[in-house]
Formats: sequence, structure tokens, C-alpha cells
Amino acid sequence: MYRVFNFSPGPAVLPTAVLEKAQEELLNWRDSGMSVMEISHRSKDFIELAAHAESTLRRLLEIPDEYRVLFLQGGATMQFAAVPMNLAGPDDNADYVLTGNWGTKAYNEAARYLRVNLAASAKETSFTTIPDPATWSVSDDAAYLHYTPNETIYGVEFHAIPNVSDAPLVVDMSSTILSRPVDVSRFGVIYAGAQKNIGPAGLTLVIVREDLLDRARPETPSVVNYRVMADSDSMSNTPPTLAWYLASLVFDWLEAQGGLAVVAEQNQRKSATLYAAIDGSDFYSNPVAPAHRSWMNVPFTLADPALDAKFLEESASAGLANLKGHRSVGGMRASIYNAMPQAGVDALVDFMADFETRHG
Amino acid sequence: MYRVFNFSPGPAVLPTAVLEKAQEELLNWRDSGMSVMEISHRSKDFIELAAHAESTLRRLLEIPDEYRVLFLQGGATMQFAAVPMNLAGPDDNADYVLTGNWGTKAYNEAARYLRVNLAASAKETSFTTIPDPATWSVSDDAAYLHYTPNETIYGVEFHAIPNVSDAPLVVDMSSTILSRPVDVSRFGVIYAGAQKNIGPAGLTLVIVREDLLDRARPETPSVVNYRVMADSDSMSNTPPTLAWYLASLVFDWLEAQGGLAVVAEQNQRKSATLYAAIDGSDFYSNPVAPAHRSWMNVPFTLADPALDAKFLEESASAGLANLKGHRSVGGMRASIYNAMPQAGVDALVDFMADFETRHG
Repeated sequence: MYRVFNFSPGPAVLPTAVLEKAQEELLNWRDSGMSVMEISHRSKDFIELAAHAESTLRRLLEIPDEYRVLFLQGGATMQFAAVPMNLAGPDDNADYVLTGNWGTKAYNEAARYLRVNLAASAKETSFTTIPDPATWSVSDDAAYLHYTPNETIYGVEFHAIPNVSDAPLVVDMSSTILSRPVDVSRFGVIYAGAQKNIGPAGLTLVIVREDLLDRARPETPSVVNYRVMADSDSMSNTPPTLAWYLASLVFDWLEAQGGLAVVAEQNQRKSATLYAAIDGSDFYSNPVAPAHRSWMNVPFTLADPALDAKFLEESASAGLANLKGHRSVGGMRASIYNAMPQAGVDALVDFMADFETRHG
Repeated sequence: MYRVFNFSPGPAVLPTAVLEKAQEELLNWRDSGMSVMEISHRSKDFIELAAHAESTLRRLLEIPDEYRVLFLQGGATMQFAAVPMNLAGPDDNADYVLTGNWGTKAYNEAARYLRVNLAASAKETSFTTIPDPATWSVSDDAAYLHYTPNETIYGVEFHAIPNVSDAPLVVDMSSTILSRPVDVSRFGVIYAGAQKNIGPAGLTLVIVREDLLDRARPETPSVVNYRVMADSDSMSNTPPTLAWYLASLVFDWLEAQGGLAVVAEQNQRKSATLYAAIDGSDFYSNPVAPAHRSWMNVPFTLADPALDAKFLEESASAGLANLKGHRSVGGMRASIYNAMPQAGVDALVDFMADFETRHG
């Protein structure tokens, strides 16, 4: 089976073993004579699958009992609206911290639903760092404080959870969830689109503390109302069953790797390999403050941008796909989520060295 | 490959040929070395796929140019809220016609967003018929008139488009779309969850007339705002790419069948076969007014409900799956969407006759 090393920022690479299992049973799941996508979400088999997915996820993230896990639709962008609708009224206030593109989108969408306070922004440094939490202008009365633990375009990541106010922390973990252990008890709401570390696009994970379930304003659509979805086991509407199934296979795969502590070591090592290659060269560079560099998305530029096209062409030919950086940053970006093996990063680093030798 | 005849009401059977193609290229799509679910929705290949899906759908349904086609998330249930948010203000009025469970849900959700007028309801007849449109109490000033062309639980279907007011017609076509040709120009908005005749759950199709794109109230979440999604080619957020791909394969398959006129003949014949078997027996019965019987969902009861469990057990053993009726109606239900072949209906009818011989 021909497979390349796929550095796409998302939808992103999935574990080959997961895809092989899905492929094998795509027309005949559990010897039922049906695909998993052809059966009712209310069937015994699917309810068992859903329960298995949740319990595996709970073990992986050590999710405390007082948190509910929801499997929704609409992606993080739907949550940009659903968070304020679920947690606050139109006259309430919420703090937002902007460390990149996604946090800015969350802030702009929320501004249509309540009063938003810009507690901090890294825009002045072109999103190459994370403002010291001690300098954030948090509100006394915020319904919540929202930030983005990892920003995919700029490659900036929080490596510690800020402790700055009493407001519940609400985070868009789309691009870093399941990349390492995390203390869920520090958060009010964790949400994540699936298409980086969970599964295919079209599934959205929401982990919400139970005391926050009953604050939704009346005009919250039922299918994104945390209380309605918690009480219906995420089945108030027909859930995205195929995506849920694939997520369950990914959770099983993570557990088979040894859990998130092991996965974190792998991710730390992968990113260290790549940053060392960049920093050890005058040909490549990454502008992010070392303390805030992302384990998941590694942008880098070539000293001579005129070589960008050649780099992309040659890397693609070498089986290293989707390395083009975001247009707002330029250059290259290697997204190295959980499913990217060390071998992929090693191959990239080897290619980079070879390319530099030939063109540097 | 072991496959049964699957009569699930939804998520429902998909064409085996579609699943086989998806299986074959699941790890390596278009010889890219990647799965279709592992690539960016903004990549050249995926944009080409999305355009192909839309153009095939436009040919199948003969969608006029002044309609936009959106590929969204959240299912019909999300649209129950999105329709009033997109089309009317809180003080506006909308007409609703209730011919079953889904229309009732749409009505209840809409009531949280605007003034709803119950133009007609078949509840008094236990949803076994469709009230004559001439008797509907439509409003003079309705922002739209909403009805449900096919109701899955009761097996009731509109076989003509009502012509009762000047308000735009808005319809939940989840369970009947693509089962036959339809005059799209008669509607303001057609929406449909994918999981019956389109593809896997998690994709929602919205076909909206362009003059209705700019009525959304400010608090409409971006990802269900028709204007935002039309202007972004349904990519304001990351779309459910895997489901979109599978839908595209289903559209190709429908075209390969000969298009919707041919599919309609097949569906008409399948349902006629099954209703004839039911009506020709005193052992089985269906309560729906013959003029309004569904081509897609055929509920039927056994004269002796004590035999229900045995019917279900024996039919499952005979490779006829998911025939249990909805709890609110009891008995059996055979959902015979596009992907159910005539051979499946013939096998069911043979089994029914045999069961009657042995137990009647």
C-alpha cells in the first residue's frame, strides 16, 4: 500500500493501522453484514461502540467524573458560537486571549453574542510568543476565560495552564488534544474539532464540567446545547457515526501505544528533532520563542524564499507531502500530530539537510 | 463479502458498489499515498471533488442556477433551528404543517425562535394521512411554510407539492431526497440529513434560493448562516470531508443507475411490491391512506403482536435486518431507500408469505 509522510495541518494524517482496520471491516462490521455507517445510532452495537469510545477517552485523559463528554458536529468554529450561547447571557462579559488565528476567530464570533474583553494579544509580535499571563488584563466578572492552547499557523503552544482568574477556563484544543497528558480538572470546557488528533473532520469533542451545563440561553440550538446533548448521550440528533467509530479506533490505538505519557515523549522527541535541524542551520529558521514552540505544528522559512517552490516540489517527490506553509506566514510548515511517526520527521530532516547541501 | 438486506430507517443501507470503491481507495486516494480524509479541504484535489459532487447533484435534481447548494453539518435537527434563524426575525410568523414526528420536532424547535402557526396537523388521525392542503390555515404574512415531504415513523409521504400560499416553501427532505425527480424551483429551502439517501450521518445538504440568503438574524452561528456558507463554498469551517466524498460517490452511483427518473421507477416498484404483499394478506396490515403511503418507509403490523418477536428473530436469521418498527407505532417497518435493491424487497415479501404460512 503506497503511503507518503503527510504533514497536512488538518484534516491530517491518521494512523495507518486505524485506516487498515476500518478498511477491512468497511462493508461488514462485527460480522453484521453491514457497515458501521449503515446502522442506527440507537442500535445495541452502536451504543456499545459509543460507550467504549467514551470510556477509552476517559482513561486516556483521566477525565474526572464531574465532567461530561459530548460528541457533536460543527467543528471548533461551531463552538466559537456555542460557547458564549451555552455559558453566558448577552450582557455578560468574557475574557479572550489571542495567540494566533484561531483565537482571533473565536473572539470575533463571540463578540456577536456577549461583551468580549481582550485580555491579551500576541498580535504585535506577529504571534511568535505567548504574553506572560501575569500581564493579562482579566476581568473581575468574566463568565469564562478563553484561550487557544496551540495555534496551527504560527506554531505557538502553551506548555503550562495559566492561573490568572477565577473564571472557568475554556479552551479550543483542536490541534493539541491527546498529544500529552493534561489536567482536565483545571478547565471548565475543552472543545476540539476531530481532524488533527482524533479522527476525520465532522466530529467535535466537548468536555464540559457539569456545573456549567445549565447556563444556556434559550435561543441555543438544541444540537449544540450542552445540557440537551449531555442528557441524550449526544444523540438528540443523529450523530456522525462513521467519524465517531474512527475516533474510537484512534483512541484504541493511542492506548495501544502506551497512553498519553508515552505519546507525549514521542511528540516531544519528534518536535525536538525538527527544531534542532532548523536551529542548527542558517538556511532554515523558525521565529517562535523557544519556550512557546509547538509540538504539533512547526513552521519554518528558507533563507531564500525563491527556493520555496523547488523545496515543495522536491519534498513532494521524496514522499513528504503537504509542507507548504500558511499564506499568512509563508515558507513551510510541518504538522506532526500523533499519527506522524518519528520516521517521517527523520525523513524530513534528512531531506532538509540534503536540500541545503544542494542549494545552500 | 457477507452482506445482509438492511432495512434500517437511518443511518441506512448504502450502495455496496459505493462502499467497495471507498474501501479500495481508503488508504490511498487518487494514488496520493493518503486517504481522502487525511487531506486539506482547501487542497486542489478536494476542491475538485467538492465541485464534482455539486455538479453531479445539480444534474440529478436539475437544480436551477439561482439556487445555492451547501454541504453543512448538524443534520436536519440543526436546520430546525437554522431555518428560522436564517429566514425570519423573532416577531415574524411561519406556518408549519405536521404530518409526523419530524415535522413536530421542527415545529417545537422553531417555536423558540419565532411565532409559529400550526397550519395543519394529522395528529388526530395518528399521522396516517395528509390533511388536504385546501383545508390548511395558512397565514397571510408567513415568512415561510414548512412541511415534511416524508415521515419515516408513520410512513406518510406527499406525492405532490402543495400550492397554498405565497410564502416560500421550506422542506425537510431527509428521508425522500433523490428518490425521484423533484421540481426544485417550487421551494425556497430544501434541507436533508445525509443518512438515508445521500451518505453517512454527519453531512447536511441545504439547497437555498439566492434571494433568501440575506435574511439571517445577527445571532445565527456562522457555520449555519446560509450567506456565510454560500460565500465560502461551504468551507467557512472545516467541512466533513469523508462524508462529502462518500456522498459524491453516491451521486455518481445514482447517475450510473440512469438518473432520478429511473431511480423513481425502481422505488415505485419496490414499494408497490411490498404494499401489495401487505394488502393481499389479513395477517399483515398498514394503516396509511393509500394515496399518501411512503415509497421509502413501509410500516406494517402483524395481526397477532405476540408474534412480533418471532418475526424479528426469524427475519434476522434469514438475512433481513433491522425490521423492528418504531416504538410509537409498534410492529415492523421496512425502510427501502434508494440503495435497497428490488431483490431485498422480493426476499422480504417471500419471507413474509412463508412466515404467514407457518404462523398464520
